Amino acid sequence: MQQLERKKCFNGRQDVWQHASEVLNCTMRFGVFIPERAQHERCPVLFWLSGLTCNEQNFMLKAGAQRYADEHGLILVMPDTSPRGDGVADDAAYNLGQGAGFYVNATQSPWRTHFNMYEYIVHELPALIHSHFPTNGRQSISGHSMGGHGALICALKHPERYFSVSAFAPIVAPTQVPWGQKAFQAYLGDDTSAWREWDACELVKIKGFPRAILIDQGTADEFLDSQLKPSLFVTACQAAGVALNLRLQPEYDHSYYFISTFIGEHMAFHAHALRQMN
Amino acid sequence: MQQLERKKCFNGRQDVWQHASEVLNCTMRFGVFIPERAQHERCPVLFWLSGLTCNEQNFMLKAGAQRYADEHGLILVMPDTSPRGDGVADDAAYNLGQGAGFYVNATQSPWRTHFNMYEYIVHELPALIHSHFPTNGRQSISGHSMGGHGALICALKHPERYFSVSAFAPIVAPTQVPWGQKAFQAYLGDDTSAWREWDACELVKIKGFPRAILIDQGTADEFLDSQLKPSLFVTACQAAGVALNLRLQPEYDHSYYFISTFIGEHMAFHAHALRQMN
Repeated sequence: MQQLERKKCFNGRQDVWQHASEVLNCTMRFGVFIPERAQHERCPVLFWLSGLTCNEQNFMLKAGAQRYADEHGLILVMPDTSPRGDGVADDAAYNLGQGAGFYVNATQSPWRTHFNMYEYIVHELPALIHSHFPTNGRQSISGHSMGGHGALICALKHPERYFSVSAFAPIVAPTQVPWGQKAFQAYLGDDTSAWREWDACELVKIKGFPRAILIDQGTADEFLDSQLKPSLFVTACQAAGVALNLRLQPEYDHSYYFISTFIGEHMAFHAHALRQMN
Repeated sequence: MQQLERKKCFNGRQDVWQHASEVLNCTMRFGVFIPERAQHERCPVLFWLSGLTCNEQNFMLKAGAQRYADEHGLILVMPDTSPRGDGVADDAAYNLGQGAGFYVNATQSPWRTHFNMYEYIVHELPALIHSHFPTNGRQSISGHSMGGHGALICALKHPERYFSVSAFAPIVAPTQVPWGQKAFQAYLGDDTSAWREWDACELVKIKGFPRAILIDQGTADEFLDSQLKPSLFVTACQAAGVALNLRLQPEYDHSYYFISTFIGEHMAFHAHALRQMN
């Protein structure tokens, strides 16, 4: 692991690290915020998954989350959204290839060599984080848009690994919307039955979820009707008897201005869950 | 005036506007945050001046100031750092020309046609803001680095116009450091006696200042010894009997991570000053 950035921020430390990922077959970067409290005690971790076109920098720079992370004593981990590099498959479109990993494990050529973001986020990266940083082993997950989809499927597939999950404007039904269908066809192939295990609406119907899920969604979001469709997740959670707190936020759009407004409440939600007694 | 962006943020509204500037002879953009309170009452204004290479976007996106602006009921105005456009003189260097106006009125060719940022910030832009937005006529000013220099000289030259002034890592003595000397020679010419009226250390010695000035400075700032030299301003304020609150912040650097950490305290400082009875 190589440290690329180290910045003092809200009494804590905003780092960027680079490492060789085995499951992604390339060099990866992630941002990590270490709160001041971590100097004295081991702290829980919140993973943040960003959306299309983002890398590890966007949330670090724009969300203003460090203030809350320091207040709550949370270690914040902000990975990139896909494998990267000259040897990694890519596409000219913003919604496929580098910057658009969709947090699945690709089975199709040319993507399967590198595009195993699910494996990276759920296994390789947490192992690295818990062994290199002063964590207490507890973790939660959140994300935005494509990253909201990522957070939901990680938590739904592994509820024992995440104390809580939340999302901002998530893609809840990738098998039913253009962004998800395009990516899943490329990464997972034409057999749509293989897509279901990467779709939050499908997963929650099969597996349920033992804790409340928090979702914020702006009503002026330009992708609301075409790509996000939160009502599909409401229907699925209702059928599965899952506690969902979907908050429609009037006039807010899909931008980081929306995220920055409500990230404090999401971090309080995760901090509360992560502090519960086992 | 033409509205380019309108985003809901922290209950308020984060806009970007474009207008034809008479004193700069070009089209200019500025960001403005309107707090929720402005729907019910007229609010005071805080002008923010950014540093080298920045435009109206940097502070909007990275400082996290909207939260505090909404809490305190402050209208935040974030101008660009120089005139812009194809017809505007420029230089290949990052520290001269577009993105580097230094908040002076240029007297030298080819700069004097457009580079009148002082006139713009002190007269033209406030007139526009107070006539188009629900302000109560009161205003304060703050800024970072080159913009900290700008904030200081605006307030020192016109103490009756600004209820308070603060700065992050300001260039306090541009006549004595490389960034300032290069810009002042280009914009103001070889006669260094003409430089003094644009130098905060010189101004405070001559004019004093009737209120306390707040400055935050990171001790790990990469420009501290070469370009910023806050001790020069301490000496000047001491000689002039001016109340200076210079806070050296250990380990913080020159970045927006530093600004975001302390912007809340600066906004509380300005809000307090702007609420005083006349």
